[in-house]
Amino acid sequence: MSSAIPEPVTKLVEAFSRLPGVGPKTASRLTFFLLRAPDEFSLGLADALNRLKVDTRLCSVCFNITVADPCPICSAADRAADTLAVVEEPLDLMAIERTGIYKGRYHVLHGAISPVDGIGPDELKIRELVERVKQGGASEIIIATNPGMEGDATAMYLQRELAPTRVKVTRLARGLPTGGDLEYVDSVTLMRALEGRSDL
Amino acid sequence: MSSAIPEPVTKLVEAFSRLPGVGPKTASRLTFFLLRAPDEFSLGLADALNRLKVDTRLCSVCFNITVADPCPICSAADRAADTLAVVEEPLDLMAIERTGIYKGRYHVLHGAISPVDGIGPDELKIRELVERVKQGGASEIIIATNPGMEGDATAMYLQRELAPTRVKVTRLARGLPTGGDLEYVDSVTLMRALEGRSDL
Repeated sequence: MSSAIPEPVTKLVEAFSRLPGVGPKTASRLTFFLLRAPDEFSLGLADALNRLKVDTRLCSVCFNITVADPCPICSAADRAADTLAVVEEPLDLMAIERTGIYKGRYHVLHGAISPVDGIGPDELKIRELVERVKQGGASEIIIATNPGMEGDATAMYLQRELAPTRVKVTRLARGLPTGGDLEYVDSVTLMRALEGRSDL
Repeated sequence: MSSAIPEPVTKLVEAFSRLPGVGPKTASRLTFFLLRAPDEFSLGLADALNRLKVDTRLCSVCFNITVADPCPICSAADRAADTLAVVEEPLDLMAIERTGIYKGRYHVLHGAISPVDGIGPDELKIRELVERVKQGGASEIIIATNPGMEGDATAMYLQRELAPTRVKVTRLARGLPTGGDLEYVDSVTLMRALEGRSDL
């Protein structure tokens, strides 16, 4: 860019541009918005960014993101310790929490097996899960990986790894999404819904 | 959000959500991206945000954003001091700079007159512009406000305010955008293009 743009401005535009889904146009829009906004605005965002990494860590039990270790869910006395939902990401855990019906605990893998992206079992918290289950206390492992190729591969791998522990392993149901329309549902989903049909 | 999300995470999601065009979904996507990205990523963005306000100020001559005061354009010996382009925002100045053909100087109003938004002439750097022109040296003021209702209102106001100085006041041409298609051009633009037609 030309000398008309001072370096602190271009630096922030560049920093914003590195975020996923933020192009150069959005990055300058955000930067110039902050330039005109009160100082507290950019300083507050900077502070929140600094605190994100400094104040959070992974729970040493379930690997969810947390301030206190173990995390509030792992240390909650009223959450069933014998049921573990295995999710790919902390955001998936939060989605399950939002349903409000799950009262067990979690294990966050931090990804899914994806040979294309070079992510194998060792890059995920799988060894830690198997170790955790081996130590006993679990009566059901609910595999809640995403319903796609990578989530399926991860689920199959987990099933095999957990088999020696003889703990019951289940997986989230596949079928029609609520509010969906048969006409627009993809054939794989419809196939899964047929396979998983239940008596009325 | 539930207790499953640690406070530093929700704080950053909230801070991102306050940015224009960033909804809660995008804000959590960005936050979780940063959680997984190396520390340098979020700390670099935080640093750029801090520096934005600390290291920049408005040029005391043209009110462009700058590190040094006066700004590089105002202090450049090879830029004609007798021609001033009046723009609404620093981004507009940069757009003109990108053309590479303008060799005069600038005056940044920091907005346009907009009664709806409660922005009158006193909220803009208009008094400073009139003062600057009165001090002499300018032979042409090019009004480069945006081609819309607010930009037009601002241009008319500036024209009236600058009339006593007897300095020539011009405005950017209105007409068809290059690469545009007559079929898709709005009727106001087409009207302006007809009004401004020139001999071949």
